[in-house]
Formats: sequence, C-alpha cells, structure tokens
Amino acid sequence: ARPRVGYFYSGKKTGQAISDTMTKWKVKDFQSVPVVIQEHISVYDAICQLFLEDVGSMFVVNKTGILTGVVSRKDLLRISIGNQDLNKMPVHMMMTRMPNITVCHKDDSLLSAAQLLMDRQIDSLPVVKRTDDGLEVVGRVTKTTITRAFLALADEHDI
Amino acid sequence: ARPRVGYFYSGKKTGQAISDTMTKWKVKDFQSVPVVIQEHISVYDAICQLFLEDVGSMFVVNKTGILTGVVSRKDLLRISIGNQDLNKMPVHMMMTRMPNITVCHKDDSLLSAAQLLMDRQIDSLPVVKRTDDGLEVVGRVTKTTITRAFLALADEHDI
Repeated sequence: ARPRVGYFYSGKKTGQAISDTMTKWKVKDFQSVPVVIQEHISVYDAICQLFLEDVGSMFVVNKTGILTGVVSRKDLLRISIGNQDLNKMPVHMMMTRMPNITVCHKDDSLLSAAQLLMDRQIDSLPVVKRTDDGLEVVGRVTKTTITRAFLALADEHDI
Repeated sequence: ARPRVGYFYSGKKTGQAISDTMTKWKVKDFQSVPVVIQEHISVYDAICQLFLEDVGSMFVVNKTGILTGVVSRKDLLRISIGNQDLNKMPVHMMMTRMPNITVCHKDDSLLSAAQLLMDRQIDSLPVVKRTDDGLEVVGRVTKTTITRAFLALADEHDI
C-alpha cells in the first residue's frame, strides 16, 4: 500500500482513472504463456503434462504449430473414468476441435475476453495470431488471469 | 447498457464510485451455492456428482453436515489415472482435509477472497459459518465468481 498523496498529484489514483484502466486493459497486458501439446501424443502423456505445468487447459497443435484443439481437466477426467487405454489413445481423438474453439486476440480488451469466458462457460481462451496456415497460439487467458486483473485494479488504485 | 446521464444525476456512475464499489463488495454479495457431498460416498460417485453439477470443486461434509474436506477436478483426475477401483474407494480417502482447507466468511470483502484464491493457488473457497460442532458450508467463491464481479464492475459503471 503506497502512501496516499494529494489530489493534484495523484490524478491516476482517483476513482475516475479506474474506469479508464478497465477500458484500456488489453488481453496482451495480462495473458499468460500457453501450454501447447502435439495432437499425436497419448491422453496419458497429456494428463502428465497438465500436472507438470499445473494448468487447467492445454492447446493442441499440428506439426506446423497451428491450433487444432483444446483439452481441459474436465475433458481429461471424463475420458479417464471410461474404459479406455489412455496410453493408446491419441489426444486428438478426444479434444475439442476447431471450429468449436473460442479464441481471442492480443489487442482485444480484457473485458471482452472475460465476457467470452462467462458466456461460453469455458475455462480458458487461446490468444491467437492469424497466419497463412491458420491460427498460431501466442497466449492464454483464464479466469485466473481475470482474478489477477481484479486484484491489480484494486492495487493500482490503492484500494 | 443504461443510457449515460448528466454528471449531477449520476453520482453513482462516476469513476470514484468504482473504488467504493470494490471496497464495499462482500463475499455474500457474489457467493454461489456450494455443492456438498458426504464423505463416505465413492470417488466414482463424487466424479459423477462433479459432472452433474458442472463445478470445479466440491465440499465434503460428515453426517452432521460439518465441513471435513474439499475435492477438486485436479484431485479426481490424479486418482483416476492411478490403478484404484474408484467404486470401492470412499472420497474421504483422497480429499484435502481440515485443517488444510482455506475458508472465507460471508462478511469478508470479495477482494480478500480473490487474494486468497491467488495466494493459495486454489480453485475454490468454501464460505463457512462457525457452529458449536465445527464449520458449516453456506456458499462457494471461485475464480468464476471473481470474473463475474469484474464484469459487474464494468456493467454497473457503464464501461
């Protein structure tokens, strides 16, 4: 908690600036590093990777690095209680595939990304960049990202 | 989106009010309904309940309704890939137990709950009420709750 300073010296700390902050925050200001896996790896290896990285979702890419799917803890739990051999099943057999993946872009507002997470009831959004071959994954936005932003908002304004 | 009205008529919509809003919001204003299971049910039944309710974590209670544990998607995924019979293992064998559970109370500020979620790196906080027998679960705060609050902040102030 920084010391509060006089009104004239703290234009950025006034309440009005909070709405400015919320409006100007972009996805790129808060996105975290995406965890990416190849589509031919086994479901078992995907689960190991999920624990190793301690994330809620991972993005699946093809050999040229283009986004083809998403797998979440929920997807992996569902497949784990089935009677499948997780070592023999490739992750692309059970992932959510394009075009059923909701994405965002680095210059989108953080607010619009938060709205997408709620509206689609999803755990994470890949931040993507369009290339000639398809979408490349450059970041990740989750509800943890939004929680961090909520706290940053209070912190930046000495609440 | 409500129409913007003149400065003098919209005291509550000015930026300053945003920090007031953030400061005054309590856990009880945003908490959702907790999903509670009995400690003797099987891990398999717990997983079914998790999918049925579509939540990330559930709270475990004893016969008198007192909080004894928490199980998350991550916990359930970890146990599912082991070589256990999920139908035979009771959920209390693998849950996170008291006193290792981080809790919050309905009159705590939402900001402090958000901070706890980040600091402890957990998915959910039970909102509890102290009784003579122990802690009773009355609500749930997750990163989804905080994301909803982040959006409500923008909506209430017409951002």
